[in-house]
Amino acid sequence: MSNGIKIVTIGGGSSYTPELVEGFIKRYDELPVRELWLVDIEAGKEKLEIVGNLAKRMVAKAGVPMEIHLTLDRREALKDADFVTTQFRVGLLEARMKDERIPLKYGVIGQETNGPGGLFKALRTIPVILDVVKDMEELCPNAWLVNFTNPTGILTEAILRYTNFRKVVGLCNVPIHIHMNIAKGLGVEPERVHIDFMGLNHMVYGTKVLLDGEDVTSRVISEFARPTESMTMQNIKAMDWNPDFIEALGAIPCPYHRYYYQSKVMLEEELEAAKKDGTRAEVVKKLEDDLFELYKDPNLNIKPPQLEKRGGAYYSDAACRLITSLYNNKCDIQPVNTMNNGAIASIPDDCAVEVSAVITKDGPKPLTMGDLPVAARGLVQQIKSFERVAAEAGVTGDYKTALLAMCINPLVGSDNLAKQILDEMLEAHKEHLPQFFKNETVTAN
Amino acid sequence: MSNGIKIVTIGGGSSYTPELVEGFIKRYDELPVRELWLVDIEAGKEKLEIVGNLAKRMVAKAGVPMEIHLTLDRREALKDADFVTTQFRVGLLEARMKDERIPLKYGVIGQETNGPGGLFKALRTIPVILDVVKDMEELCPNAWLVNFTNPTGILTEAILRYTNFRKVVGLCNVPIHIHMNIAKGLGVEPERVHIDFMGLNHMVYGTKVLLDGEDVTSRVISEFARPTESMTMQNIKAMDWNPDFIEALGAIPCPYHRYYYQSKVMLEEELEAAKKDGTRAEVVKKLEDDLFELYKDPNLNIKPPQLEKRGGAYYSDAACRLITSLYNNKCDIQPVNTMNNGAIASIPDDCAVEVSAVITKDGPKPLTMGDLPVAARGLVQQIKSFERVAAEAGVTGDYKTALLAMCINPLVGSDNLAKQILDEMLEAHKEHLPQFFKNETVTAN
Amino acid sequence: MSNGIKIVTIGGGSSYTPELVEGFIKRYDELPVRELWLVDIEAGKEKLEIVGNLAKRMVAKAGVPMEIHLTLDRREALKDADFVTTQFRVGLLEARMKDERIPLKYGVIGQETNGPGGLFKALRTIPVILDVVKDMEELCPNAWLVNFTNPTGILTEAILRYTNFRKVVGLCNVPIHIHMNIAKGLGVEPERVHIDFMGLNHMVYGTKVLLDGEDVTSRVISEFARPTESMTMQNIKAMDWNPDFIEALGAIPCPYHRYYYQSKVMLEEELEAAKKDGTRAEVVKKLEDDLFELYKDPNLNIKPPQLEKRGGAYYSDAACRLITSLYNNKCDIQPVNTMNNGAIASIPDDCAVEVSAVITKDGPKPLTMGDLPVAARGLVQQIKSFERVAAEAGVTGDYKTALLAMCINPLVGSDNLAKQILDEMLEAHKEHLPQFFKNETVTAN
Amino acid sequence: MSNGIKIVTIGGGSSYTPELVEGFIKRYDELPVRELWLVDIEAGKEKLEIVGNLAKRMVAKAGVPMEIHLTLDRREALKDADFVTTQFRVGLLEARMKDERIPLKYGVIGQETNGPGGLFKALRTIPVILDVVKDMEELCPNAWLVNFTNPTGILTEAILRYTNFRKVVGLCNVPIHIHMNIAKGLGVEPERVHIDFMGLNHMVYGTKVLLDGEDVTSRVISEFARPTESMTMQNIKAMDWNPDFIEALGAIPCPYHRYYYQSKVMLEEELEAAKKDGTRAEVVKKLEDDLFELYKDPNLNIKPPQLEKRGGAYYSDAACRLITSLYNNKCDIQPVNTMNNGAIASIPDDCAVEVSAVITKDGPKPLTMGDLPVAARGLVQQIKSFERVAAEAGVTGDYKTALLAMCINPLVGSDNLAKQILDEMLEAHKEHLPQFFKNETVTAN
Repeated sequence: MSNGIKIVTIGGGSSYTPELVEGFIKRYDELPVRELWLVDIEAGKEKLEIVGNLAKRMVAKAGVPMEIHLTLDRREALKDADFVTTQFRVGLLEARMKDERIPLKYGVIGQETNGPGGLFKALRTIPVILDVVKDMEELCPNAWLVNFTNPTGILTEAILRYTNFRKVVGLCNVPIHIHMNIAKGLGVEPERVHIDFMGLNHMVYGTKVLLDGEDVTSRVISEFARPTESMTMQNIKAMDWNPDFIEALGAIPCPYHRYYYQSKVMLEEELEAAKKDGTRAEVVKKLEDDLFELYKDPNLNIKPPQLEKRGGAYYSDAACRLITSLYNNKCDIQPVNTMNNGAIASIPDDCAVEVSAVITKDGPKPLTMGDLPVAARGLVQQIKSFERVAAEAGVTGDYKTALLAMCINPLVGSDNLAKQILDEMLEAHKEHLPQFFKNETVTAN
Repeated sequence: MSNGIKIVTIGGGSSYTPELVEGFIKRYDELPVRELWLVDIEAGKEKLEIVGNLAKRMVAKAGVPMEIHLTLDRREALKDADFVTTQFRVGLLEARMKDERIPLKYGVIGQETNGPGGLFKALRTIPVILDVVKDMEELCPNAWLVNFTNPTGILTEAILRYTNFRKVVGLCNVPIHIHMNIAKGLGVEPERVHIDFMGLNHMVYGTKVLLDGEDVTSRVISEFARPTESMTMQNIKAMDWNPDFIEALGAIPCPYHRYYYQSKVMLEEELEAAKKDGTRAEVVKKLEDDLFELYKDPNLNIKPPQLEKRGGAYYSDAACRLITSLYNNKCDIQPVNTMNNGAIASIPDDCAVEVSAVITKDGPKPLTMGDLPVAARGLVQQIKSFERVAAEAGVTGDYKTALLAMCINPLVGSDNLAKQILDEMLEAHKEHLPQFFKNETVTAN
Repeated sequence: MSNGIKIVTIGGGSSYTPELVEGFIKRYDELPVRELWLVDIEAGKEKLEIVGNLAKRMVAKAGVPMEIHLTLDRREALKDADFVTTQFRVGLLEARMKDERIPLKYGVIGQETNGPGGLFKALRTIPVILDVVKDMEELCPNAWLVNFTNPTGILTEAILRYTNFRKVVGLCNVPIHIHMNIAKGLGVEPERVHIDFMGLNHMVYGTKVLLDGEDVTSRVISEFARPTESMTMQNIKAMDWNPDFIEALGAIPCPYHRYYYQSKVMLEEELEAAKKDGTRAEVVKKLEDDLFELYKDPNLNIKPPQLEKRGGAYYSDAACRLITSLYNNKCDIQPVNTMNNGAIASIPDDCAVEVSAVITKDGPKPLTMGDLPVAARGLVQQIKSFERVAAEAGVTGDYKTALLAMCINPLVGSDNLAKQILDEMLEAHKEHLPQFFKNETVTAN
Repeated sequence: MSNGIKIVTIGGGSSYTPELVEGFIKRYDELPVRELWLVDIEAGKEKLEIVGNLAKRMVAKAGVPMEIHLTLDRREALKDADFVTTQFRVGLLEARMKDERIPLKYGVIGQETNGPGGLFKALRTIPVILDVVKDMEELCPNAWLVNFTNPTGILTEAILRYTNFRKVVGLCNVPIHIHMNIAKGLGVEPERVHIDFMGLNHMVYGTKVLLDGEDVTSRVISEFARPTESMTMQNIKAMDWNPDFIEALGAIPCPYHRYYYQSKVMLEEELEAAKKDGTRAEVVKKLEDDLFELYKDPNLNIKPPQLEKRGGAYYSDAACRLITSLYNNKCDIQPVNTMNNGAIASIPDDCAVEVSAVITKDGPKPLTMGDLPVAARGLVQQIKSFERVAAEAGVTGDYKTALLAMCINPLVGSDNLAKQILDEMLEAHKEHLPQFFKNETVTAN
């Protein structure tokens, strides 16, 4: 790293990229990025160029000596990288639309990272992320992989369980979102707040809140547990928690918990939204189209404020903060997806969890958290079972294992229905599931 | 026990009693029961007398010197007992009807031992079973409590976690039922079959089947996993499992697993049945009325064959076999509900589980089972979380804890709905939930 | 096994063989051994023939149709075997003498299975037992390996940790010895006594004693814990335990525990004995020579009573009882060396332990034991650490790992001394440690 | 804490106090100590006054507004304290001399915190520390107890296991000593070095060393594992480790490990030293007498450099750094004695361990460490067993439990010898062991 840092972003054509570029610009003093390589695939070439040119204008405007490289050649980009971040979407938003629409047809929640949709996003993404890992082991073995691609929990599990690669951190903006909102609720700067995060990705709980080191957990639970707009995320409808429930739970759930603790309402909402405004992917598609229109403007040289609506709030903060701490051996505490290693008592040591960890140059070191409240434990363990079976299915491409994952997912809860959904989704996503169709005869058309 | 064995049966007026009496008669040589005390409460007095008189005629006909005592005074009966069995139902079948009907109104499965119904059966029964335990500690501290009362898993958990009493075994006829059906399917005598049972009550899996000591698990899974009539129980509709699912699972689920792996179908079935023939409690009520008519016949001096339809198949076998082994230090292997103690790796050591155990005079010693298949683990852990919170609610009578139990039960899955169901059921079962209403002002009417 | 059972005994020329043959003859009805193959190596050919001919005479006299085969070709013998037992001694008693004499020179206990001697017996034996396992996997994959060769705990650990072979049971006559002596002390038939055994080989504790199923542990501890002749073994000097210590410990140690709880006295005794009567191996050598003289007598056709002095009391009972239960799926409880699998809480699941287990045709299923008393736990864990490092050294032949094993053995307790002893013993046992000398240049003589 | 911090030091008359005072003065800006209460007992009154007056002169010279209070009334001092530090010695150096001399008579290592001496120091100190805790719960429930009194591991265990008090941190200067020496060896500022510390007090290993976040463990092991003067402590003779042993171990032991890995040499050294210069306590006694002579000098107003020889190097740094981080919620990483909580896999969660932890205002949060090397694990577990039994003996005053602790201590290794040493030491320390002599008739002389 003698000449500054080389960062590679897989899925560089994403509409999120200006977030990331802004983050690197802001932190240039402590994180001197010399080269930022934005990598995408053929199908994303146009977007890569639009967003890449915006990035170049942003860097020029900021006056920092950061080179922006655009490429479709991932292996060229990875050579000697220091950090690799991922934000790609196998099958693009079209695939997500199927993940949302198909389950709904069967009366089952269709969502990006939960239920059948989450399973298929994992099945599509695992072969790609394992490929990235293989390339990294060869081309930049000392680099850290900061995986922002969903479902980051399952992907981290797959990497930790099925490869020997250990320099991976799974990242999500849910915990930072909760952190920011709690700070806002307490009326203080976020720096004064510490939250013990423990659980899994999109299934994380805040089990303790400290303000200047003093325990304010029950205050936060009673005041903020009934979340209004401020406590939800762009892509999950704001919805009150039953206050007695949250108090008895004794921990702060994340917005995605609603899929489990409010399944019926969530399903109804989804069905209604799908009829009215379209599914989330469809809404996002429109937002993205608008964003790329904006990005094209040759006079635009900053991150446009409209990006906020897209749902990636604090994405840049989360990613840049993590990379900065890894680079500078900062030893501050951040919530990440990493190997449990004893942090959460009721999860096996070798599983991926989302947990508060000290971030060192040597990687994240989770804090010992003790255990989740008894009431929260079971759901987390159930989802971890699902994640492990899903990861195995993604790696092996075994049909029955994929069916098993679908059957034990609590949002499905029906073996025969699971099979129907599985079959339709396998067919729909066929082109992105090579591991499931590897032995199929390919005939000329 | 110098003069033979004294057995006390709490809920002695149950229609099941002739099963038990027949079992004791059959086994008199190795289990010389001198006194059988049938205990019931005022409201069950008439049934106690009917069934008690039948018991006396059965004993007389069999010519064994077993005294049958009928009493409403539990403490008198317990004095110096050797074994205490329980088969009582707090609130009788009327309460069970409410457990079934109320959740259905909210679109939630209403069932005796699962979902809201199971929770309320636990809440009603825990105070009574803890009272029995207290009496036993005083009046017959060396006796074993063989608890057949449902939900036996939660009751065993409550006793192990909230008392110092350890001479309790929770018993259920589900495993013996599976055992008998698998033997039938294999076309062999049950004695030649061994099954590794592990999990929780009504959530138990057969993870290994041995025939004469040889592993035939996969054969059994592929042939019998798709159960027909022979693989289900009287009170759960026969229903095929998806064969790919069962094969991928690699273990034999119990009939009650259908509430989780086939939730939607089960709910539909229940709704339809409730409209047509009535809920299971309502059906049972009629069966019981008929049975008691039969029992009254002064010429009847054997167990009437009609009792089989009632659903307690092998109840007598399970209970008498257990007592015989405890009494004779037989060291044979039986599935019971007892403390885990390391038997199942992913369940904490101090939890109640249902597991194959060696039955000694010193109590059941579970065999080390290793762990459940990854795919089964999560659901079992989730139900164990629920059971622990339910047990706590039953012991403390704390409203919020009860709400928490309802919210985290996977058959409910909705916090606000949980509250509505909880409130209606608390009101409906008020007279049997003293722990929840202890501070309420009682006003004269 | 259609035509009866084929048993192969590796080290068939051992003086113990008549014990085994007698055991098979006595149990012929339930364990119909058709062929017994006694296997030995070239150096043991003469003894093999002497003992083999005695075996033939014993069988003839008993009138059972059991064929005795003598061979130096292990692979021929193993073909289609049903059970393989081992009782070999790499390097014969001469090697044991070195194991005893060399450490003593450095003021360290020299003993067959403990301290430096135990380490070297493991290092010499591991390559051979792994070879046997490899042959079995090829030639008789369904056979059980009943390993009586010392140190059976470390060998079982090595097989479980470094091979995929699982049909191994490590066996020792220490627990049966304790069992018999306790029964004698209680004045009852051994069948009426059950003892919970838990720990490691030669480091096993009796933590609970039941007489007809009733707990008599504290009675046994207070009466018998201060052992006289009856509570020790042929090869360990009888010696009182401090009664307050044993009572506070709350468990019955085995004779070998004296090496740890009475180290100093044991060392002094050894030093004295070495001067006076010779070390144990030297004493045994004379006994064996006498035994073989006896065995040669063509008129001898029963096990000679003099064999008892040799130290293998109950060896035949232990081995034959185990094989009979494995063969007949007896499901009785026997103490064996097998994978822990949750039986003893403070030992990792994947380690070999010595523990009471139900013996089925499918192998031993340990009972859940809970945990050792806190005071006993630490020593057992320390020896387990030693055993694991010793097993690794035996498999890899790595010098530093062997040094590490020697250094952490509590009977050595000195790093530089450990190195001296290690170096001298490596040299002394060179011909039996191919794994440590594999890269050494072999020069023509 | 509105008016600054109140710190209470139990055993304030210690010769170490000037270290502490100097530390508070240096850190006044971030740790504004308003009141420092030095508490001692009647027997230590003179020393308290000498050292207290020196403290007053030091504060005056430094010009910080810190009040020094001297008192024999502990309860008065504790009222509303913010931090309580302990550095007392029950029975003074005279008791330590007995701890050293008596075991030596029996050929057993006599040492302040290991073997019989460590046991007796624990037995004498536990009643006093539990009394301090009781007072704190009443008089300053929000204060932190920073226990520097030896054996701090056993004391922390006793507090965590036998009280509900959780605001305790056990502190030792061994890890900081290792840290400083490794930094010195690497030729860098200590701030650039991070060491993963894990184990128990006086039995801690450095398992990973990072320099600026880069792993330099094997370099440190190979260069520094063979410690010279720089790698030992004042009170333990410098002594080479066998380099092959340390390399195979793969971790950096602490100086006290020599009592276990080099037992024989250590015993010989001790015996020789005892003859020549006297035991460590005797040497220290002279040093202390000299120090107090120095302290009396009314012109002395700084910490005299001679104090360094006393052995408490970095004591002040360790203590003040910890208090500063607790007070300021610094979230830096320090090695402390606290509840394991999953940090070290092979130690139960509820045990006290010495481990690297993030220091927050909410207390220390250990980092997840994974597990100790297999070879180190067993010894640590054995000492933990000893510590638990020792803590129980200290709390209960039960003779047999104390004997058990003595018997299982690996430095004793002999039951009858243990009893002799125990009896002599109980008698010798009688006046400081009220829990063991509570029922003894006291007769007038």
